[in-house]
Amino acid sequence: MRPDDDARRQARGGPFDGYHRRMVPPPDPELTQVGPGTPCGEYLRRFWQPVAFARDLSATPLRVRILGEDLVVFRDRSGRTGVLHLHCAHRGTSLEFGIPVERGIRCCYHGWVFDVDGRCLETPGQPSGSRLSERIWQGAYPTHEFSGLVFAYLGRPDRRPAFPIYDSFDVPGYRLMPAAKFALPCHWLQVKDNSMDPVHTAFLHALSSGYQFTEAFGVVPELDWLPTQAGMVYVATRRVGDLVWVRVCDFMPPNVHQFTREFEDATEAKPASRPVVIRWAVPNDDDQTTNFELAQVDPAWGLTAEQVAQPGFGQSDDRPYAERQRHPADFDAQSSQRRIAVHALEHLGAADRGVIMLRRIVRDGIRAVARGDDPQCAHWPDGTVIRTFTQDAVFRIPPAPDPEADRRLLRRTGRSVIDENRA
Amino acid sequence: MRPDDDARRQARGGPFDGYHRRMVPPPDPELTQVGPGTPCGEYLRRFWQPVAFARDLSATPLRVRILGEDLVVFRDRSGRTGVLHLHCAHRGTSLEFGIPVERGIRCCYHGWVFDVDGRCLETPGQPSGSRLSERIWQGAYPTHEFSGLVFAYLGRPDRRPAFPIYDSFDVPGYRLMPAAKFALPCHWLQVKDNSMDPVHTAFLHALSSGYQFTEAFGVVPELDWLPTQAGMVYVATRRVGDLVWVRVCDFMPPNVHQFTREFEDATEAKPASRPVVIRWAVPNDDDQTTNFELAQVDPAWGLTAEQVAQPGFGQSDDRPYAERQRHPADFDAQSSQRRIAVHALEHLGAADRGVIMLRRIVRDGIRAVARGDDPQCAHWPDGTVIRTFTQDAVFRIPPAPDPEADRRLLRRTGRSVIDENRA
Amino acid sequence: MRPDDDARRQARGGPFDGYHRRMVPPPDPELTQVGPGTPCGEYLRRFWQPVAFARDLSATPLRVRILGEDLVVFRDRSGRTGVLHLHCAHRGTSLEFGIPVERGIRCCYHGWVFDVDGRCLETPGQPSGSRLSERIWQGAYPTHEFSGLVFAYLGRPDRRPAFPIYDSFDVPGYRLMPAAKFALPCHWLQVKDNSMDPVHTAFLHALSSGYQFTEAFGVVPELDWLPTQAGMVYVATRRVGDLVWVRVCDFMPPNVHQFTREFEDATEAKPASRPVVIRWAVPNDDDQTTNFELAQVDPAWGLTAEQVAQPGFGQSDDRPYAERQRHPADFDAQSSQRRIAVHALEHLGAADRGVIMLRRIVRDGIRAVARGDDPQCAHWPDGTVIRTFTQDAVFRIPPAPDPEADRRLLRRTGRSVIDENRA
Repeated sequence: MRPDDDARRQARGGPFDGYHRRMVPPPDPELTQVGPGTPCGEYLRRFWQPVAFARDLSATPLRVRILGEDLVVFRDRSGRTGVLHLHCAHRGTSLEFGIPVERGIRCCYHGWVFDVDGRCLETPGQPSGSRLSERIWQGAYPTHEFSGLVFAYLGRPDRRPAFPIYDSFDVPGYRLMPAAKFALPCHWLQVKDNSMDPVHTAFLHALSSGYQFTEAFGVVPELDWLPTQAGMVYVATRRVGDLVWVRVCDFMPPNVHQFTREFEDATEAKPASRPVVIRWAVPNDDDQTTNFELAQVDPAWGLTAEQVAQPGFGQSDDRPYAERQRHPADFDAQSSQRRIAVHALEHLGAADRGVIMLRRIVRDGIRAVARGDDPQCAHWPDGTVIRTFTQDAVFRIPPAPDPEADRRLLRRTGRSVIDENRA
Repeated sequence: MRPDDDARRQARGGPFDGYHRRMVPPPDPELTQVGPGTPCGEYLRRFWQPVAFARDLSATPLRVRILGEDLVVFRDRSGRTGVLHLHCAHRGTSLEFGIPVERGIRCCYHGWVFDVDGRCLETPGQPSGSRLSERIWQGAYPTHEFSGLVFAYLGRPDRRPAFPIYDSFDVPGYRLMPAAKFALPCHWLQVKDNSMDPVHTAFLHALSSGYQFTEAFGVVPELDWLPTQAGMVYVATRRVGDLVWVRVCDFMPPNVHQFTREFEDATEAKPASRPVVIRWAVPNDDDQTTNFELAQVDPAWGLTAEQVAQPGFGQSDDRPYAERQRHPADFDAQSSQRRIAVHALEHLGAADRGVIMLRRIVRDGIRAVARGDDPQCAHWPDGTVIRTFTQDAVFRIPPAPDPEADRRLLRRTGRSVIDENRA
Repeated sequence: MRPDDDARRQARGGPFDGYHRRMVPPPDPELTQVGPGTPCGEYLRRFWQPVAFARDLSATPLRVRILGEDLVVFRDRSGRTGVLHLHCAHRGTSLEFGIPVERGIRCCYHGWVFDVDGRCLETPGQPSGSRLSERIWQGAYPTHEFSGLVFAYLGRPDRRPAFPIYDSFDVPGYRLMPAAKFALPCHWLQVKDNSMDPVHTAFLHALSSGYQFTEAFGVVPELDWLPTQAGMVYVATRRVGDLVWVRVCDFMPPNVHQFTREFEDATEAKPASRPVVIRWAVPNDDDQTTNFELAQVDPAWGLTAEQVAQPGFGQSDDRPYAERQRHPADFDAQSSQRRIAVHALEHLGAADRGVIMLRRIVRDGIRAVARGDDPQCAHWPDGTVIRTFTQDAVFRIPPAPDPEADRRLLRRTGRSVIDENRA
């Protein structure tokens, strides 16, 4: 066999062919860069992004890095939130050492004061009568505070959308509360891929490492993915004896998803339950992401704000490596797909259809922005409450006579949950 | 409004215009690179630079990084100090693991010995009769030990200046002692900017974070900056009732400044007091700086050498972040102006005139070296004792009838301190 | 003197000429890059390389970095070892979080299973009937387990050699045991240079830092280096009164060497003793190296496996810096020759002849591979037991009448050990 033949054979794949497949191409630049002026960075900037929990704003400001920009978040003494460029317009000292005042923030170094819109209000070291402050502006972004989360809009000012209202913000009987914040040392899109990938709940969270949720999760469900007005959903339908459990999760572009609590055990028929968690995956940089969560909480659960703020099991880097190896969870599976996952090396199958759809929505949005249009789901008519479908519903439906027919039945039952709602 | 108009309006500055001002240009390369062969690096190399305190030279050598070069500093057993390139001329092993011997230092790996001038004295592993050592030189720099500080000259050998003698080295009644050494993770010039920026004493050290010095510092003084033969001074003059307090500090290019102790409370008239601290800001690299201090100490203070060697409050990275946020000090204000401050983003005012003058002196020196000349203040006539002006003086001078006239009076009083001395 | 003259004089070397010799050229790219597709990287890949000790393979896999590639090493439940590319062929999750199963390893994220040859055995999330797995291969390398060490072959599949058998694997009366593993933060070649550099045993391990071995090591020996079929040897011959002590060590390209225990005190005549240590210096990256050792152990020593697995004194980064400065050892001398030693700055003498020969063997091998040939020592005839010479032998031979004659006598005695064996 000539070396050429060997190379050709190996390129198709074969035993012990690591030598022929060891080169790692760079990540897709269109999808994976988030800094100012990058295609994906400009796309993400067309949406309000959470930058801090209000609970973390105290007498001192909070330094954050969002989309590759260094920022300071603070609440001034009249209660307004500000998001400013980190470095003072005067000589660059970080405003993380600044002092929030009645109106805006004062830089520690020479006492200059900036309002939350960036206006310079005082330059006290200057000679009396100086009009220097009139031409000084600190870079600032508009903010919006909602349910204990501070959002900022970092995009083109003339395309700023209204803050979107999801129907899941208001679920009767539940209280929307600020929940967990946790970081992953990897690109945001691989964190989000996970949201439309229900197969992993059967493996990562059940068979691979012991049952992290309920035993019912240990069955690979009948799967479906559907576009919605808000973005897309997955529908995962499992048979549990005479019951059929339909689990639906939403992805809302560009980087939001929501899911129900992971404690459904599907032991009795019940209508759609929607105590959702809503999660934003905000890029700090190309290879670092912070998740911010809001959660619908049943007051009957008796949880304190501190308890609601705890990340779920295995979501954050809070376990020793040896334990993460024995019982891997979301943090481990997602952050270990390289710092920035390389799509060119993937082998996607039918079960990855949701991931493919999600990435298509993101790429379409990036290209819309690049050609001067608005991306999908950025702008909504005034007063819109955006319809989402996240739920657990359990129906009493006896099995069909044969496995193939039952699969069709499960699939039909799953879709009906969306169709009803869409009707 | 068309997008173009929007962009143009934002470029002038306006509310919430962070999007239009988020790009960060690179630092000025002429002013901010310190490595071998760079403009500023060659300028700084035309002066003696402190590289270590003698108190840190023991039976083992000291590894340092100065101006982007890895060096070893040691004292041999006959008492001479040596500053050599870190890596042995033989096969590169670090001389930080070498053994100071009677004459020079012996590399641990194969026992080669180098004198403090770099001459190779022994290559013991070689066959007897070998003359290999005669053609071996370890890179070496001349040293000068003064008041417990070891200085080296890293510049062009044929332009080596005499070691400069400042008048402040000898203040009657005080003893010049080795004082603190502390590092800042940032460029040296932003550390030095601070020296000609007296406004910050009113804010950073008083109003912003509580009174770190005396209450008298909490008034923005009448300010003046003047060129001197040694470099430049600032003159900060404050009225305290019937008293006028004149504080003067010197900047001696390229990277030295001196100041009085920060405990003047200006409660009575007194002649010029000069218990100065002299501080060199030596670049380790473009974005790391070590301050070395000598201090005039009154024996009556009863301070031990260890106490004199302690950095002042907030000068070094020795406080927890939360405390630094509540009570920011010099370390925080200076090191947070980015790792390397970006002058193109600054907005300087009248109170920054000293910073502008200081940078002009540095830039003029850089350009002088670049065109083959000597920079200002490098060479002095033999026997020169260089005149400096650092002092606190308090005069009993009742206020002028109106604020404007009093400001003129303060200014005149401040200048008189320099004129008298210059006369 | 004109500056030009000055520059020219300094280039030849002279006192305090650090300024003229401060520029550090890059390392030799031919010799010092180890990643996929680099000249030296492809050379090293033509040999079996140790990647892990079997003792470190447990119920969880082991993540390693070898020659710039991220790999996972594991033992499946049927006892076979596997070395696979770290990131799962599906969506890239690290197989360090995978679960070894009866046949191969299962990815934690979606349960895909790969056999030790890379074949995909299951893609459980896919629809029933899916034939996706048939076209999926995980990058895999062949493995060979020997004496508690797992070796892998990362080179061109069609040039895979048989695993080489050294005569030192079987020494009567001794037991070959897995020994130490320890890392150095530097390039592999400077770690290996040390193996053919017997002069350092007199300095680094004796005179420089106190006697780490026996006192007999404190004499610079009569030195010789000879090519052998297995690679090369050094012969270090010392006179100890009426005795002559011959110490021989082998270098077996590309990155193996062996040596005797360092406790010879040469107090009586004795035949060749061969309780060797065999050490592979495996590059993790260009500037990080892991040493793997096998050791011949005399059962009479009563050592536990844990004791045999301990690195020797000063071999690893297990001592505080202050102690390493006072008593430097191999780790310090080798790893401080820069992260990657710069040969262009070296000054080699007669005592470095072994280093020069070793590097020549490596460079010849690199060039052989580059032009399509096999490198020296990669392929051996079937059944070859490779002859090596590592030993301590002590002869009773009274000194010759004068020092020069005695040196010739020592040299002759040293060579005789090799000649006898080669005969």
